[in-house]
Amino acid sequence: MESFSVALGQRSYPIHIGAGILGEGALYAPHLKGGVAAIVSNTVVAPLYMGRLRAALEGVGARVVPIVVEEGEQAKRWQVLEQVFDQLLSGRCGRDAVIVALGGGVVGDLAGFAAAVYQRGIDFIQVPTTLLAQVDSSVGGKTAINHARGKNMIGAFHQPRAVIADVAALDTLPDRELRAGLAEVIKHGAALDAAFLEWLEANLARLLARDRAALVHAVRRSCELKAAIVAEDEREAGARALLNFGHTFGHAIEAATGYGSWLHGEAVAAGMVIAAGLSARCGLLPAPDAARLRAIVGHAGLPVAAPKIGDERWQELMALDKKTARGAVRFVLLEGLGRAVLKSGVDPALVRESIAAATQ
Amino acid sequence: MESFSVALGQRSYPIHIGAGILGEGALYAPHLKGGVAAIVSNTVVAPLYMGRLRAALEGVGARVVPIVVEEGEQAKRWQVLEQVFDQLLSGRCGRDAVIVALGGGVVGDLAGFAAAVYQRGIDFIQVPTTLLAQVDSSVGGKTAINHARGKNMIGAFHQPRAVIADVAALDTLPDRELRAGLAEVIKHGAALDAAFLEWLEANLARLLARDRAALVHAVRRSCELKAAIVAEDEREAGARALLNFGHTFGHAIEAATGYGSWLHGEAVAAGMVIAAGLSARCGLLPAPDAARLRAIVGHAGLPVAAPKIGDERWQELMALDKKTARGAVRFVLLEGLGRAVLKSGVDPALVRESIAAATQ
Repeated sequence: MESFSVALGQRSYPIHIGAGILGEGALYAPHLKGGVAAIVSNTVVAPLYMGRLRAALEGVGARVVPIVVEEGEQAKRWQVLEQVFDQLLSGRCGRDAVIVALGGGVVGDLAGFAAAVYQRGIDFIQVPTTLLAQVDSSVGGKTAINHARGKNMIGAFHQPRAVIADVAALDTLPDRELRAGLAEVIKHGAALDAAFLEWLEANLARLLARDRAALVHAVRRSCELKAAIVAEDEREAGARALLNFGHTFGHAIEAATGYGSWLHGEAVAAGMVIAAGLSARCGLLPAPDAARLRAIVGHAGLPVAAPKIGDERWQELMALDKKTARGAVRFVLLEGLGRAVLKSGVDPALVRESIAAATQ
Repeated sequence: MESFSVALGQRSYPIHIGAGILGEGALYAPHLKGGVAAIVSNTVVAPLYMGRLRAALEGVGARVVPIVVEEGEQAKRWQVLEQVFDQLLSGRCGRDAVIVALGGGVVGDLAGFAAAVYQRGIDFIQVPTTLLAQVDSSVGGKTAINHARGKNMIGAFHQPRAVIADVAALDTLPDRELRAGLAEVIKHGAALDAAFLEWLEANLARLLARDRAALVHAVRRSCELKAAIVAEDEREAGARALLNFGHTFGHAIEAATGYGSWLHGEAVAAGMVIAAGLSARCGLLPAPDAARLRAIVGHAGLPVAAPKIGDERWQELMALDKKTARGAVRFVLLEGLGRAVLKSGVDPALVRESIAAATQ
């Protein structure tokens, strides 16, 4: 098992990465001060891992309240959150209870937001079971549900007490979701660490074959890169926006396709190709580097082009993106592989061209 | 105008108290970094003060998005929050917009919670227009909506950027609400400051006659006492619970009567009488002091006894109160006037007796 800490002062927390660690009670024990743990999971993950996690928690003396919600992105809505609140209340969870989020990014976002606002905030632990959640969404404290007009519009910054990333849980992950998770791994390399991107280029086959040592390295390096940014800018006032490389376009793709037909990672993959193309068109990134990133995305089995959305709808969706300042969309672009920057005042014509060049 | 600061490091903020200050643009100007202000008010307060506030904000260059919600405690629910989100989005409010809460405690709680979770948290300013909100709910960053099973069950700690308490706005407050606000003023004296309680005893008539100098003093001293506690214990891990003197019983009265037939302050008033009686029965408070507090509550025109609720329902409602530790209800009791303490392990028989002794 490998462990390191996200440095956030009083809100610092450990990230543990290993194979088979989901059932290790000792990792949860320090966070059970109230003796009650509510496990929030969904109908797909609960049958696979709820029993083992429950036994681990009970083994260290916790009373467990199991809460199972529907599967999929559509669970990130108020009505499902209300079901979680109802079950927390009927399970007599007080302010000293801890929520354990067992599942992918949707479960983590939903359970984390429930923890952020239940009785004005209780503790929670992330136990991510998808690659996407292990390398990205479980770290950094962003929690949210969706609004009809935009993804993650309602949420909170609420840091977990610990992240327990078990790469053995990826054995049961469908191939498509594994690849979607790799999109965020590639993003970390492309935006922040050229050497890591190079390692990924050389090790894509091992990762796609679920080689555990390769997965542990990819998860650890992704979490380290993200943790360093989060420590510097917890509430996304500056540097943290760089983690959204590919996301302004990706969010628009998800919204335009109604959330769910494209996986988040797939939308981000196409979004990165557009953003790299835009970086090249703005004269920031050499064109061969944009092509190289496009090739890595393609080799990971991820989409390199967006669906047809229409110019007007693109503009509308990008304007709604949270990364706006006084109404102007800001873009995360690359000044080189591994060197993301935040730019406003980008020529709209170049944005249109970049979208058109990477549309299916 | 009097001003002082709530000391919370980076989250410190000023409280301004005076007559006629609601329309002073200069008080809002430092908090308009994004140039957009959404005023959240209700159907009772908006016709009285929205125009003046809007003019003040526009006078310092803000674009104003007015949002008017229904009146009353029942506005503290998700559906109303959704209306606020819809209007924030259609008003193109980004992360740099500021919400201005114009109204009483309900508006402050609702608008504050909206600010806490909209796009994962934006700034807000409290402009309390009831005495209750001026002396209590607008200070300290507690925001929430209700759940069918309990008041303020879903919420967040989200500090305002400023509190602007205009005692001239109390001119339009119904007498019953003025008295309900006095309940929290009396609470601050009873729990934290015997000298202030004595001043209140001597000045109740002036306060009930809305003497502005007396009101400014009562609001200022209440806010100071609360601010000192909040600075020490922002998230209610310890000392802040003392501010809940009378509230365990008061919340139960509100819940049992369906929220709304008793005003919050009225329920707290009866709750304080019960809590003082319990303090005396536990041997902590001399019986004459409990009687003295009861008399002050009565002279303020507030209820000194709870409605008939039934023993079983009392137990159930108190167990749901958020001030539980490992399932045991803790009570805020008085060791003397002005000296509140948190006690667990209180004899349930004494609790029953104290309730019975103060039931209508």
